[in-house]
Amino acid sequence: MAVSQRPGGRSARVRAAVLTAARGLLVDGYAELTVERIAQAAGVNKTSIYRRWTDLEGVLGDLLSEYASEVVPIPDTGKLDTDLEELASLIRRGMTGEPGELITALAAAAPRNPRAAQIVRGFFAERFGLAEAVVDHAVARGELPDDTDAQAAIEVLGAPFFLRLLVVDKPIDEDFARRTAAAAVTALRAGVFSRTRRPLHSGG
Amino acid sequence: MAVSQRPGGRSARVRAAVLTAARGLLVDGYAELTVERIAQAAGVNKTSIYRRWTDLEGVLGDLLSEYASEVVPIPDTGKLDTDLEELASLIRRGMTGEPGELITALAAAAPRNPRAAQIVRGFFAERFGLAEAVVDHAVARGELPDDTDAQAAIEVLGAPFFLRLLVVDKPIDEDFARRTAAAAVTALRAGVFSRTRRPLHSGG
Repeated sequence: MAVSQRPGGRSARVRAAVLTAARGLLVDGYAELTVERIAQAAGVNKTSIYRRWTDLEGVLGDLLSEYASEVVPIPDTGKLDTDLEELASLIRRGMTGEPGELITALAAAAPRNPRAAQIVRGFFAERFGLAEAVVDHAVARGELPDDTDAQAAIEVLGAPFFLRLLVVDKPIDEDFARRTAAAAVTALRAGVFSRTRRPLHSGG
Repeated sequence: MAVSQRPGGRSARVRAAVLTAARGLLVDGYAELTVERIAQAAGVNKTSIYRRWTDLEGVLGDLLSEYASEVVPIPDTGKLDTDLEELASLIRRGMTGEPGELITALAAAAPRNPRAAQIVRGFFAERFGLAEAVVDHAVARGELPDDTDAQAAIEVLGAPFFLRLLVVDKPIDEDFARRTAAAAVTALRAGVFSRTRRPLHSGG
């Protein structure tokens, strides 16, 4: 029988069961999550998980790729400030739910697990890359200098969320998102991310 | 004999040997670091390490506390922009050397290790707290609004360094430090971190 080769076959069912189980267990956080618990909840053998995903981080990476493949609506309101405010709100919602747990788990594994590091870096590179469109649109509208470094600006927008997620024990709420967006807009408009401008002492 | 009770006694010698060994091994990064290797390099028994520090993160936390106890010179140039530029440069140097490896290692362990989480949070809270003086001085000089949230501003200054350290595979160099400082200065001067101001749509 070639059932296991078919997209809807046994292999796909195992994957779905394992990812659903991991997702369910992640609700309780990463600290207690193990391959053993996932196997038990999914009703599969532990060795099947190790064979397919190598380790816990492999399962989490696969789960994250499910989110990564979802279509992310990049804000396009026609103005930089409202675009970045919406983007910050999207990041906030993305980070405070299940993807936040996943990113925390994978970022935590990254220094010891090259595969986890690759997944986290790939995820951020892809998401940040999409978000750069907001800055590029503002450049096209003449709101920002032509030589604005969109990548650097999006990093500055996203970084405070990441710091709160991993280190600073304070809420990631809408006020925080709005202020983070405002900081990025102000710096962008002042030309801080212009590639040719000397950052300080030239315009302050 | 009460030698192990004296500051310069056996206990202190073991601690010094273990921390020196851990420091030496950290040069090769966190990925390969184990209690076993530290014990071997320090010439002590593995169980002595577990008894005293519980786990690898305990050793690293102790090592980090050595850095945390060093006197950090908080810039005081008399101007906000040069103060923040110097502060960014200090953060850069702090994060690119051995403390960066330690912070990465401990931040990585944090989601599964409450003690590591506490150490990392405590370290950042202490350092960020010291850095707030730069903003407070600018408020006292009348450079910034009275109700400026120094803590939030320092978070925005420090966050991009943390993001690069853990996730974004790009250099933490002086250009990056200068631009990060410039973004924070610009946002501060625009009143983004003023507690009473609506962040966007009010002054842009």
